[in-house]
Amino acid sequence: MARALRLAERGLYTTMPNPRVGCVIAQGERVVGEGWHRRTGEPHAEVFALREAGDAARGATAYVTLEPCAHHGRTPPCADALIAAGVARVVAAIEDPFPAVAGTGLARLRDAGVAVEHGVLADAARELNRGFLSRVQRGRPWVRVKLAMSLDGRTALANGASKWITGEAARADVQRWRARSSAILTGVGTVLADDPQLTVRLPDGIDFAPPLRVVLDRAARTPAAARVRDASAPTLIVHGRGASVPGVETLAVAATAGRLDLDATLRALAQRGLNEVQVEAGPTLSGALVAAGLVDELLLYVAPTLLGDAGRPLVGLPRIDDMRMRRNLAVVEQRQVGHDIRLLLRPGNA
Amino acid sequence: MARALRLAERGLYTTMPNPRVGCVIAQGERVVGEGWHRRTGEPHAEVFALREAGDAARGATAYVTLEPCAHHGRTPPCADALIAAGVARVVAAIEDPFPAVAGTGLARLRDAGVAVEHGVLADAARELNRGFLSRVQRGRPWVRVKLAMSLDGRTALANGASKWITGEAARADVQRWRARSSAILTGVGTVLADDPQLTVRLPDGIDFAPPLRVVLDRAARTPAAARVRDASAPTLIVHGRGASVPGVETLAVAATAGRLDLDATLRALAQRGLNEVQVEAGPTLSGALVAAGLVDELLLYVAPTLLGDAGRPLVGLPRIDDMRMRRNLAVVEQRQVGHDIRLLLRPGNA
Repeated sequence: MARALRLAERGLYTTMPNPRVGCVIAQGERVVGEGWHRRTGEPHAEVFALREAGDAARGATAYVTLEPCAHHGRTPPCADALIAAGVARVVAAIEDPFPAVAGTGLARLRDAGVAVEHGVLADAARELNRGFLSRVQRGRPWVRVKLAMSLDGRTALANGASKWITGEAARADVQRWRARSSAILTGVGTVLADDPQLTVRLPDGIDFAPPLRVVLDRAARTPAAARVRDASAPTLIVHGRGASVPGVETLAVAATAGRLDLDATLRALAQRGLNEVQVEAGPTLSGALVAAGLVDELLLYVAPTLLGDAGRPLVGLPRIDDMRMRRNLAVVEQRQVGHDIRLLLRPGNA
Repeated sequence: MARALRLAERGLYTTMPNPRVGCVIAQGERVVGEGWHRRTGEPHAEVFALREAGDAARGATAYVTLEPCAHHGRTPPCADALIAAGVARVVAAIEDPFPAVAGTGLARLRDAGVAVEHGVLADAARELNRGFLSRVQRGRPWVRVKLAMSLDGRTALANGASKWITGEAARADVQRWRARSSAILTGVGTVLADDPQLTVRLPDGIDFAPPLRVVLDRAARTPAAARVRDASAPTLIVHGRGASVPGVETLAVAATAGRLDLDATLRALAQRGLNEVQVEAGPTLSGALVAAGLVDELLLYVAPTLLGDAGRPLVGLPRIDDMRMRRNLAVVEQRQVGHDIRLLLRPGNA
């Protein structure tokens, strides 16, 4: 299963909106077939593994990181393919919550006399598909807020200068987190202030599905010439009802008190098939997402430098006067990236 | 020498103002004597090691973490003791910059026909005695600024509430850094706001020399009943010329523009024999030390929690409008302490 998970990871930048899935077919200790899902419309991991195994699949065990599908989507059901190949046993890391699968894949296998297990390395399998699982189970994408700050929690100088707080290694690292995202989301304030392109820049030869660039822009102020609207990747402007932005895909969402409804926005993005959404925005939007409890993880780069208290804050949050009101997170991972520190945090009690 | 350094570390909390020194006497691979310096007035590391070695010191090699002394201080010169014991070879990690020693210890050994080397594990030996070396070589203590902050760089809520940002493990860890310090320094603002005691609280059985509590208090506002003035440890109030504080040891220092001269203060503290000074103060004093370039290391505890931009800032620094003016540090060490993150940083280019 560990091998199947490593295979699944190969699809990290490309499978969206599908989940990342790997499959290993083994006769005892001997691997006879391997496969992973590369992208939507192409065969599933099981199909590649069965092809490679050929006749050796008969009586073998198939290890899959996600329950095999039982429905006719763009490809025929994998459960049927495993049965037809004569696989004797299927071990799945986790069940697939997708309504058209949701246990029916394993049930179909079991009905056909195949031995079935699941729950092996389930945590790692869930981790790999946080976005897909969030979309299917919660109806909203997995929201990762990426921030870069100085040691004293400043994202820019008072005059807005912020190029570059973090070093080259950290900036290259961000590109990989972008590449695994279905979308990069920002606010119109950042577009107007910094005019970012929000595309993925990876070394040559690394395949990725260009993430959708999403701008939250209630009053439709994104200039037609903004780099985020260039032809290098798809773009979606989310605006309030009544506003309109010609020449680009748009989505109208309700606004209350002059602000787009963030929960409704995320639900609409999930409807559109977005798994992981990476937020790269200013303190207002980042803070609003935190305040609304809509942040699933914080990807924080800390540069070992002091900018001083006049600098721009990390997140704008309503003032609190009681420590019990603070928002606790847990450090999931901590590492050095070049001269900077990278922290991955998730809500939870410290 | 590694063993000698480990022995020297045993004096981490007690040798001040003396350096931490360890000594191992060996006949080839066989250790015949070991010693370390415990506290001022007690014998040096070499003396303990020679006592343990007895006749076995003849023809042996002595490994010492610091050049043996050649002057009559509170104890007779160790160089002489090594010569008298018939030690054939002395390996020192570093030379002692103390004016009364400064190479004369090694010279005296050499003159007596003892083979002499130095520079073995020199970096580790220097690290162990940063404070002593700073005081002797630069005429000022090693200044460590300890700060605790939330993920977004806040040390307290807007209303001042700060108990407790970091967890129990981090607070216990701070006690060990206090214990190795010659002094804990704070500002009168912190005394008036939080009334801290600034003593060392370690588990029973751990010996330490109680650090001097130093309050920078230009206008002599520290109340007689302040906990920092209680009988549990010595206290020094540093005030401006003209002010006076009865009933406690004081030091008058020049003030300019309504502020104590920080450089003069530190020089006076070095004169008084302070090696490592740990600053536990608010953003004003911490920021002033950073701005004056007087901070040698930053001990930063980061709690994985968000307090919001209304909270109190980490350090007060003059506003800068050019990223080239930022103050860069280098991460010397990064680790998890309980749920919190501990960073040790020193000035340097990222």
